[in-house]
Amino acid sequence: MTRISLDQAQTIVSGALKEARALGLKPISVAVLDAGGHMIAFAREDGSSNLRPQIATAKASGALALGVSSRTIGEMAIERPTFINAAAGLNPAGIVPAAGGVLVRAEGGVIGAVGVTGDTSDNDELAALAGIKAAGLSV
Amino acid sequence: MTRISLDQAQTIVSGALKEARALGLKPISVAVLDAGGHMIAFAREDGSSNLRPQIATAKASGALALGVSSRTIGEMAIERPTFINAAAGLNPAGIVPAAGGVLVRAEGGVIGAVGVTGDTSDNDELAALAGIKAAGLSV
Amino acid sequence: MTRISLDQAQTIVSGALKEARALGLKPISVAVLDAGGHMIAFAREDGSSNLRPQIATAKASGALALGVSSRTIGEMAIERPTFINAAAGLNPAGIVPAAGGVLVRAEGGVIGAVGVTGDTSDNDELAALAGIKAAGLSV
Amino acid sequence: MTRISLDQAQTIVSGALKEARALGLKPISVAVLDAGGHMIAFAREDGSSNLRPQIATAKASGALALGVSSRTIGEMAIERPTFINAAAGLNPAGIVPAAGGVLVRAEGGVIGAVGVTGDTSDNDELAALAGIKAAGLSV
Repeated sequence: MTRISLDQAQTIVSGALKEARALGLKPISVAVLDAGGHMIAFAREDGSSNLRPQIATAKASGALALGVSSRTIGEMAIERPTFINAAAGLNPAGIVPAAGGVLVRAEGGVIGAVGVTGDTSDNDELAALAGIKAAGLSV
Repeated sequence: MTRISLDQAQTIVSGALKEARALGLKPISVAVLDAGGHMIAFAREDGSSNLRPQIATAKASGALALGVSSRTIGEMAIERPTFINAAAGLNPAGIVPAAGGVLVRAEGGVIGAVGVTGDTSDNDELAALAGIKAAGLSV
Repeated sequence: MTRISLDQAQTIVSGALKEARALGLKPISVAVLDAGGHMIAFAREDGSSNLRPQIATAKASGALALGVSSRTIGEMAIERPTFINAAAGLNPAGIVPAAGGVLVRAEGGVIGAVGVTGDTSDNDELAALAGIKAAGLSV
Repeated sequence: MTRISLDQAQTIVSGALKEARALGLKPISVAVLDAGGHMIAFAREDGSSNLRPQIATAKASGALALGVSSRTIGEMAIERPTFINAAAGLNPAGIVPAAGGVLVRAEGGVIGAVGVTGDTSDNDELAALAGIKAAGLSV
């Protein structure tokens, strides 16, 4: 497996949305990117605000840019704010240092990332993880 | 009706992809934006290249930016290239002056736009129109 | 094979440089990118000018962005200049519509791209092709 | 001596990578720039994440931009964050205020810089220094 297929990406999106509704989260947005940071699938629920496409994308893109989850980037941003701020400026899609951006792995390698935004960062991450699980992929 | 719902946007995407497969087009990407130019749904078929998310988005965003289809923008770009080039620089998502970006209307008003890219511009537009029709919306 | 390894990328670079010296080309620069458009290896010969890193990268990145060689992009730019100009503005690394940017394939899929600049576009492409051949990869 | 030759730059890269493997560091990326901030050579190890080319380049470019190592820029960023932030916005390649970007000197003058990223900043700097030493150059 070398790429998240569109079928898999759409399963991740629908799995994340299903989890968000089961948990009663606020309206969310979900982006699925390939390993190079290029979008494969995206959905924004009714009521999810204007910048959510960019935030969801930046959570996932930032995880791919630095090779760790956006939750870890959030921890790095507390210890080394100027480094993360500088890195964000170098990434065309930006970096959002808050949970909800999760790397997707297969056969030991990173094959993409999922970014979710709309509720708390912890809840966003739950939805992302549920989507990845629904597609039978690993984190 | 003032906004394309996520359900409608996903129907537009699946309708455009179905048409692309029926016509035997090259792998395409489809973006659906609301009236404010903010993405609601997106899909990139397997084999559709890296920049297609931005091109699909720019076709739709440009149509909303200037209030006409990206086909018309393509005609304007031949007559007034410096104007379209300048306008493209002002729109954060850019403008792509080629067919495939179509305004979606309901109750007489623009409620969003669809952008398709991957095959010829004419074929991209056919897929966009099929998607809008599948959702029971007007152009 | 899902990624050009650093070893392979360095073999592409040395193969391209060896061909450039065998053909007596002007000083060249060679960039090897992964499928997502991210640099793996780069070399700029003594006497190759300041912007060559960006030009080599843009030739390869543009090929990945649109899914065709930069030679084909050059042909597209003659027929549809406004489309290629608009696409170049959307790609963070830009697009250079001239030969020398070549897609690298394995197992039927694109796994990266090579960009060469410094001599004529035709000669740049010869060096890129020689580098890919030296690494035992396909175009 | 006024310029790092490609041979020297490639020796710096291979020396830095050798040190990284000897120390058991995480996968790193190494950029060597000339005195004008223009890339001469670059390598990204397998597993080094997407943004590493830009981060390695920005560490080295920032050092050349301000005339001090990126370690010193990191100290400046704590004392004068708004100045470093503003300067970063002025430098096309950006500035990363963390160790790993080292100026290279010969005959008393700055002839270029090396940037390393992938492990801790302190370890990145060790790899950069080892590369410069391998090429018989001074810091």
